[in-house]
Amino acid sequence: MTDLPSVTAAAAEAPVSELQGLAVQEVEQNITPWEVEGAEVNGVKQVIDYNRLMKQFGTVKIDEALLERFKNVTGHEPHLFLRRGIFFSHRDLEAILSRHEQGKPFYLYTGRGPSRGHMHIGHMLPFIFCKWLQDVFDVPLVVQLTDDEKYLYKNDLTVDQVYEYSLNTVREIAAIGFKPEKTFIFSNMGYMGGAFYRNVLKISRCITFSTARSSFGYKESDHIGKIHFPSIQAAPALCSTFPTIFGNRTDVPCLIPCGIDQDPYFRLTRDVTKNLKHPKPSLIHSKFLPALQGDTSKMSSSVDNSAIFMNDTAAMIKKKINSFAFSGGRNTLEEHREFGGNPDVDVPYRYLEHFLDDDQELADLAGGYRKGEITTGQMKVRCIQVLQAYIAAFQEREKAITTADIEAFMNPSYPRSFASLATKQA
Amino acid sequence: MTDLPSVTAAAAEAPVSELQGLAVQEVEQNITPWEVEGAEVNGVKQVIDYNRLMKQFGTVKIDEALLERFKNVTGHEPHLFLRRGIFFSHRDLEAILSRHEQGKPFYLYTGRGPSRGHMHIGHMLPFIFCKWLQDVFDVPLVVQLTDDEKYLYKNDLTVDQVYEYSLNTVREIAAIGFKPEKTFIFSNMGYMGGAFYRNVLKISRCITFSTARSSFGYKESDHIGKIHFPSIQAAPALCSTFPTIFGNRTDVPCLIPCGIDQDPYFRLTRDVTKNLKHPKPSLIHSKFLPALQGDTSKMSSSVDNSAIFMNDTAAMIKKKINSFAFSGGRNTLEEHREFGGNPDVDVPYRYLEHFLDDDQELADLAGGYRKGEITTGQMKVRCIQVLQAYIAAFQEREKAITTADIEAFMNPSYPRSFASLATKQA
Repeated sequence: MTDLPSVTAAAAEAPVSELQGLAVQEVEQNITPWEVEGAEVNGVKQVIDYNRLMKQFGTVKIDEALLERFKNVTGHEPHLFLRRGIFFSHRDLEAILSRHEQGKPFYLYTGRGPSRGHMHIGHMLPFIFCKWLQDVFDVPLVVQLTDDEKYLYKNDLTVDQVYEYSLNTVREIAAIGFKPEKTFIFSNMGYMGGAFYRNVLKISRCITFSTARSSFGYKESDHIGKIHFPSIQAAPALCSTFPTIFGNRTDVPCLIPCGIDQDPYFRLTRDVTKNLKHPKPSLIHSKFLPALQGDTSKMSSSVDNSAIFMNDTAAMIKKKINSFAFSGGRNTLEEHREFGGNPDVDVPYRYLEHFLDDDQELADLAGGYRKGEITTGQMKVRCIQVLQAYIAAFQEREKAITTADIEAFMNPSYPRSFASLATKQA
Repeated sequence: MTDLPSVTAAAAEAPVSELQGLAVQEVEQNITPWEVEGAEVNGVKQVIDYNRLMKQFGTVKIDEALLERFKNVTGHEPHLFLRRGIFFSHRDLEAILSRHEQGKPFYLYTGRGPSRGHMHIGHMLPFIFCKWLQDVFDVPLVVQLTDDEKYLYKNDLTVDQVYEYSLNTVREIAAIGFKPEKTFIFSNMGYMGGAFYRNVLKISRCITFSTARSSFGYKESDHIGKIHFPSIQAAPALCSTFPTIFGNRTDVPCLIPCGIDQDPYFRLTRDVTKNLKHPKPSLIHSKFLPALQGDTSKMSSSVDNSAIFMNDTAAMIKKKINSFAFSGGRNTLEEHREFGGNPDVDVPYRYLEHFLDDDQELADLAGGYRKGEITTGQMKVRCIQVLQAYIAAFQEREKAITTADIEAFMNPSYPRSFASLATKQA
């Protein structure tokens, strides 16, 4: 995949002369665990500049050499999310590959803030990727549902509500295709205590208010629950948080697939694990799936028409793509045929990048679009087909998830075994 | 009991002329949950000024009228700690008496920071008092062992160590005479989770960093575990933290017997409970048992010769009182016989105030001391006898505590029933 253009679709359309002779007014992009906003230039929202973000956060680009190494070590063709730069950045991914090469274990850790409604296709990315990584490496996956964080950040919610959200979220995550034999999904509110709480204490003793503030921009008017929360998000990066999986080992590192916006939490976590004599977690970061309205922000759970939700019907998917998906095509069919469209900002194409596995077909779609041979309508039709199929299959699997399944995923003592964990302390 | 004198024993001995003509240099007394230091005037440590503390904290003195009411409501003569002003201050104690009068339930909540060594006689005060209150009112007692706080405040300790301290502390508290049928003793590290964690979350959402700082003087270099801890100390003041005792009730208030130094925690707790639609806790505050060296500070667990410990032998008790107990007697026997001693600053007498139940004998001792009829040696002998007897009986009971007993106290589901809890929601 080519890099994202550094100007928005709207700005790209504007004649250069319109921007000349004016003092350029810039608002920087703002990517934090709670906000994802592209920059603004002269009042025009920009797409997110991921290169700048990597530089700002100090992460490393996943390049061709690393993908080659991935292929050699695992014997698998990299997932389309890797091939297409959707998971684009990392910290110490090589260390994980080396461990695998040496037959030493690691595990996967990802998380999700459960919310009122259903998950949308943007929420699927880390889970789809985890499922694939789990299949490739045969490693445990732990999924933290941050219902406590949700409660701490949303004053209108009760603890009962957020816990209910967690249970619904387990059902949705399970429907991606995980098995409880390999996967422990826990609600912070449900699992807090024991080894988890001990690690929360250990971590909290290593993070000063000043450090937390410089990582997360806390204010003095923020409540102490919020300020303390980074300890809780960090704890699953220590394998000793899960004694039913790892016994009394403290030497098993994890790989954390997550949105790049979550990096500040884990940067702090990496500093802390050193003090606690646990290995540093490795990270692999994704870009955001664009909202229907385009690539200047990410999908929002609370804005129904910004996203395709996992419970949307085939008709709703069709309607949303047709009515709301930002198009990189030209204003008229004639212009489109003559000058071609821009797939890089075309939301239906962008969704196909994430959900259409066939590289050749995707390349043909992009090429045809640029040449004006493929129309906006045709791109939308293909996007609708692919999403309808993906979501219908998901909904089928979800229907089959029972309460007993949910209990199995959430049960820390459910029997889980991994060949890779049989190796001795590293 | 008369109020404490406002100057130290040492300063009382100094001729007034020595203090005249000098600019008086004052250092204010400093009473926080972590430090108890009397004021200093011209380099001389002062006894703790409890009247000033009540005014500063905004608590209310327990007066004769309240004691009379206590007697009328309960049909019991007030405990010697009440008769002698050792538990001297309160917040909303009347509300608890009124509930009892109306047959409505309440419970007792107290706590203890477990530590390496054994408890000393100063640590016994809230527990001795709780035991008596429990017998008088037939109410549940919950005891929070703040092993997590200990870990957060002592960088050289591990979580395993502080948890071990908790188990030892349960044994000592049990030896005071509690029964697991009425008493739930929990380690924060052991009990954290479920309903407890939910209440911690609720409380933490109500306390801003600014508020916590103004209550506890946190600095920006303090770690986020410390800053968050007030939420954990507050949670047991909500009856919903203990669903195995109170079911789904949220309307049962507690009475918290504690040292006056812990008031800042519970002042904040009282503000918070209002927001959480739980009743405010009532408080009853004790003075500190003086260190062997006198009434300018409290006994310290870490200074062996400052305290009588619950594992001291009869011989050690005798030696400590004889060698280290600050005396309010005169320098020579002749002077003592002529001018008399001051029992108010005499540590052996002060200990008798706490552990000798016989009001008449105590009055005789004080009167005789003032007149010089009772010598320092005689006062010490009586103190040694009383403490030896108390501690020997304690040690007998402690020996009989089994691991199964400890497990029963710490088991949230141990069958506990209380006639008073049978009443409907208030």
